[in-house]
Amino acid sequence: MTLASERLAELGLRLPPAAAPVANYVGWVRHGHLVFTAGQLPFDENGTLQSPGKVGVDVDIATAQAAARLCALNCIAQAAAAANGIDNIARVLKVTGFVNATPDFRDHPAVINGASDLMVDIFGEAGRHARAAVGASSLPLNACVEVEAVFAVRE
Amino acid sequence: MTLASERLAELGLRLPPAAAPVANYVGWVRHGHLVFTAGQLPFDENGTLQSPGKVGVDVDIATAQAAARLCALNCIAQAAAAANGIDNIARVLKVTGFVNATPDFRDHPAVINGASDLMVDIFGEAGRHARAAVGASSLPLNACVEVEAVFAVRE
Amino acid sequence: MTLASERLAELGLRLPPAAAPVANYVGWVRHGHLVFTAGQLPFDENGTLQSPGKVGVDVDIATAQAAARLCALNCIAQAAAAANGIDNIARVLKVTGFVNATPDFRDHPAVINGASDLMVDIFGEAGRHARAAVGASSLPLNACVEVEAVFAVRE
Repeated sequence: MTLASERLAELGLRLPPAAAPVANYVGWVRHGHLVFTAGQLPFDENGTLQSPGKVGVDVDIATAQAAARLCALNCIAQAAAAANGIDNIARVLKVTGFVNATPDFRDHPAVINGASDLMVDIFGEAGRHARAAVGASSLPLNACVEVEAVFAVRE
Repeated sequence: MTLASERLAELGLRLPPAAAPVANYVGWVRHGHLVFTAGQLPFDENGTLQSPGKVGVDVDIATAQAAARLCALNCIAQAAAAANGIDNIARVLKVTGFVNATPDFRDHPAVINGASDLMVDIFGEAGRHARAAVGASSLPLNACVEVEAVFAVRE
Repeated sequence: MTLASERLAELGLRLPPAAAPVANYVGWVRHGHLVFTAGQLPFDENGTLQSPGKVGVDVDIATAQAAARLCALNCIAQAAAAANGIDNIARVLKVTGFVNATPDFRDHPAVINGASDLMVDIFGEAGRHARAAVGASSLPLNACVEVEAVFAVRE
C-alpha cells in the first residue's frame, strides 16, 4: 500500500507549512481521534492568495477548482500537523466547501471537486469523504473558495 | 416504543436508496458511532430535483419546507445505509440547513422546519437535534435548499 | 488556574439562560464528550435581537463584532447547560461564523474575532478553536451574524 507521503511525492506536491491564523483561533484542534481544521483559503506556499474574486464573474470554474485544490492541500497540512505527519491521517471524514459565487451559479460541485479529487489522489479510499458544497455571497479577503475538513487520525 | 422503521411506515414514507454521489466523495462516512452525511439536495425517489429556484422569488416557503423535508429524508437514507438500517440510528445530533435565498430573506427557520419536523416525526425525542439555518447566495443545480446532518448510530 | 466561571465574573459577564428554540430542535446535543450547539443569533439577555442588518451596509464592523461576541456568549450558555456548568467545558473545538454581508464584503475574520476573542478571554488556551468565517447572503430574522460551535466537555 502506498503511503500518503509517497503519493504526495509522486504527485510532485509538498505540504506547505500549516498556516498560523492571525487571530484568536488555531489551524486545527484535535479531540481524541478527530481533527477539525479551520477554514482554509487558497494561499500558496508563499502566502499569496490565489485567484481572488467571484466565481462566475471574475474566476472561471477551472481556476476555482485549482484554488479548491490548494485549500485542500492546506487542510491536509493542518491535519498532518495535528497528527504528527501525513501518514498518521486515517481518514478524511467530512469536507465543506464554500464557493464565493454569484446568485445564479450552480456548479459548486465542479469547483469543490478540486478539493475532493486531491483528497482521493493522496489518500485513496481513505480520502473519500462526506461533502457539502454551497454558495457564499462573500468570503474573507474576497477568496473565491474556502474549504474546511474533519479528519480521523491514528493514535 | 415505536421503531423508526414503523414510524416511517405509519407516515406513508419509505427511504429512498442512499444517493450515490457523482464525484470523488461519498454519501456518508462513519467514524465510531458518528455518521457524517454529505449535503443532500431535494431529489425525489426518481432522482428529479424538486422545486429548484430562489426562496422568496421563485419558491414559496411551503414549497421550500417540502423540499427541506425531502433533503432530510435523503439524509436519513444515508445514515440508515451507514448504520445497516434506520432502527440502528440512535440520535440525530446536528442538522445544518442552507437556504438558497434572496438577500432580504429572513424566514430560514420556517424552511428548515421541514427537515427538523420530519426528524422528530420519525425518531421522536431522539430526532431532536442542534441546528443551524443560514442563507446561501446560490446552491448546486439551483436547488432551493441543501441539508447535511450528523447522526449517532448504535454498534 | 482561573476557572471559566471566575473569568466570566471578572469580565463582568453572566451567562444568559440557554435559549430554548421555538421549533423542533434543541439548543445543544451531547454525544459522549462532544457538544454541538445550535446556531446562535445575537439575542441579548432580554431576548432582543441586537443589530439586525447587513454588514457593510446597515451594520459596521465594530457593531457586528459585538454581535458576534453575543452569539459566542449564547453558544457558551448552551454548552454550559449541556455540561452542567461552564467549568465542565474542557475545550472549544470548532466555531463557524456566518456573516450576513454584501457580495463585496471581505472582513469576515474581523467580525468573527468578536466571538473568538470572547472564547479565549473566558477559557484561555482551552478557548482556542478551529474556525471558519464565511459570508451568508441572508440570515434568520435579518441577524447580522450567526455562530455555532462544537465543544468538548468533561465527564
